[in-house]
Amino acid sequence: MQDERRHLRIPGPTPVPPKVTRAASRPIFNHRGPVFHRLHGQVTAGLKRVFQTDGHVALLTGSGTAAMEAAVANMVSPGDKVLVLVGGVFGGRWAKIARAFGARVIEYGYPWNEGADPGRVAEYLAQHPDIAAVFATHNESSTGVINDIEALAKAREAAGGHQALLVVDSVSGLGGAPLQMDEWGVDVVVTGSQKCLMVPPGLAFVAWGARADQRVEQTSNHRFYFDLRAYKGSAERGETPYTPAVSLVAALAEALEMLEEEGLEAAFARHRLMRDMVRAAMKALELPLFADDRWASPTVTSVKAPEGMDADRFRAVVRDSFGVELAGGQGELKGRLFRIGHMGWAGPLDMVAAVAAVEQGLKAVGAPVRMGAGVAAAQEVWAAWR
Amino acid sequence: MQDERRHLRIPGPTPVPPKVTRAASRPIFNHRGPVFHRLHGQVTAGLKRVFQTDGHVALLTGSGTAAMEAAVANMVSPGDKVLVLVGGVFGGRWAKIARAFGARVIEYGYPWNEGADPGRVAEYLAQHPDIAAVFATHNESSTGVINDIEALAKAREAAGGHQALLVVDSVSGLGGAPLQMDEWGVDVVVTGSQKCLMVPPGLAFVAWGARADQRVEQTSNHRFYFDLRAYKGSAERGETPYTPAVSLVAALAEALEMLEEEGLEAAFARHRLMRDMVRAAMKALELPLFADDRWASPTVTSVKAPEGMDADRFRAVVRDSFGVELAGGQGELKGRLFRIGHMGWAGPLDMVAAVAAVEQGLKAVGAPVRMGAGVAAAQEVWAAWR
Repeated sequence: MQDERRHLRIPGPTPVPPKVTRAASRPIFNHRGPVFHRLHGQVTAGLKRVFQTDGHVALLTGSGTAAMEAAVANMVSPGDKVLVLVGGVFGGRWAKIARAFGARVIEYGYPWNEGADPGRVAEYLAQHPDIAAVFATHNESSTGVINDIEALAKAREAAGGHQALLVVDSVSGLGGAPLQMDEWGVDVVVTGSQKCLMVPPGLAFVAWGARADQRVEQTSNHRFYFDLRAYKGSAERGETPYTPAVSLVAALAEALEMLEEEGLEAAFARHRLMRDMVRAAMKALELPLFADDRWASPTVTSVKAPEGMDADRFRAVVRDSFGVELAGGQGELKGRLFRIGHMGWAGPLDMVAAVAAVEQGLKAVGAPVRMGAGVAAAQEVWAAWR
Repeated sequence: MQDERRHLRIPGPTPVPPKVTRAASRPIFNHRGPVFHRLHGQVTAGLKRVFQTDGHVALLTGSGTAAMEAAVANMVSPGDKVLVLVGGVFGGRWAKIARAFGARVIEYGYPWNEGADPGRVAEYLAQHPDIAAVFATHNESSTGVINDIEALAKAREAAGGHQALLVVDSVSGLGGAPLQMDEWGVDVVVTGSQKCLMVPPGLAFVAWGARADQRVEQTSNHRFYFDLRAYKGSAERGETPYTPAVSLVAALAEALEMLEEEGLEAAFARHRLMRDMVRAAMKALELPLFADDRWASPTVTSVKAPEGMDADRFRAVVRDSFGVELAGGQGELKGRLFRIGHMGWAGPLDMVAAVAAVEQGLKAVGAPVRMGAGVAAAQEVWAAWR
């Protein structure tokens, strides 16, 4: 089937390795028996190594947004003041969820093509000693910008040792870009199965440390399915409180083993290589990059459509005629850019293919293009890579 | 692998047909593209035929409990008075979720081996004209009791045309036992993918009619991930608001097609046959059944452990030595009974196998058993079946 030959180059869900698909295909098993207990222990330990935390990890059955809601519902009580860093659609989602759960939201909106400024965060904190939590986005997949989470975590020190919790959405970052949760003092990190973790969508994870755990016990917000206290209790028995997506948990165990074999640092380097190849190619094709080099995401690259070109029509051509599916712009950016996902089970050859398809697409829609120029630039980056 | 040869005879998750597993294994695809749009349309239409409704259906990524929470969060505002029918663990779960979301809960506790009494429900309603919603369980899988939802729906008429919404958990019933949502005047029905629908766990569904939809628009409860308004809006575009478990949606499309081919009525009859075979077998083995015949669930049968026998130890023997995994008692019933699941992708031969393993297990733990008596009784039921 033509659909099944397509290269999926969107920022999630991402292609799944055959080994992981096979693991997901094993016969269904009891979620209250020894097979699941073993898997639960295995994936929890594996996830802690990826989150780089000794804290708690909850396995939720849900989308990435489910894990975001779990973070809000467990860390924020109605009336709490929170600071939300908004530089794209997913920063905006933190603000929406926080408002839905009764928080008083201060939005720090930063330019969509840059990361958040830790100095400005420190100013907000100094001005509002009662901020209960700061919500940030590690990798803003709507724009292709990665934040400096280590520096943002330190902003609390700059603000005189502010006690706000730092809650980070790393749905499209974790496993593809460094995030040392405990080392950097991040209190809560959320992610999903379908990005750098190479598993189909359907699982989401919340990791939280000791300070966040105190908050979990005190928060007064309504919550049941996302009540982290229930996940903590069940985890001690090697279970989840409600029937989990067992086939995806089996898949996750396999994917985490693959990531462990490659090594986290090697995976981060692979993602940087893919980013550098794609960016060099787009520059060679004279297509303007949306995110500044300094803030360029290692997992997704946003490219501005040339003047007069409809990015969504271009994407349809690249997909239907040349076999590569790109993502479009979200929110304010709809129709104005296309995004090339380079996360999870992907490598340099996939970038060569994606760039080639972009070139074919430009030619097909009548845009000026020097065939092969982008591909060559990507290859040069790969050749020079050490 | 030994684990993979096991017959999974628990009330969910249930075995998945090979065709459905293959559908779940297709390469990952974009949840914002034409492949998903087609699937979304197909499964939404298929689910409406199974729910027997012309109302709305939301596709959630989550456990069955997620759909229960969505029903509560969208139908109940803090301070609302609700009536919850509790005859087992899952009725109890309705009460817990409703309390977590600020409802004033009236619990009507009925005997765990019987269905709820529509007359008593009418009395509660007559006494409390301000009840906003009645929460009921179609098939209480913790006990093996099925409720008469049609009669419970009519209790509102008996109470002078009471306006309370009727919200039904049919997680372990839908697709295995009749439930004519619109015809009977049920306002909301929730279910999960991993029971009679023959799909791995990870998807959950909420169906709601016109009266419930008015409530959705008015409810003041905190909600984001489970906000049915967002699902309604996205469904018009053939999408879900957040990244869905796309591989499970592909699986669902295949499973719904299989169910359609068999026909709903034939599926119900197959479940009744399995129930009757198992019950006849247990009677022949002189093992007491937990649920009264009148209320016997077509999808799961609860059997009391003989005096002096630890049901959980017995189950471990049946699983590890004879290859059939049974479920244990939940809540107050832990250790006191075992449950035989007969839902989803299962048929009469599977019941013969399950009964044989129970007999082997009885012998192995030194309980009195006439080998083959249960199997023969099950076969007689099958032979007489039309």
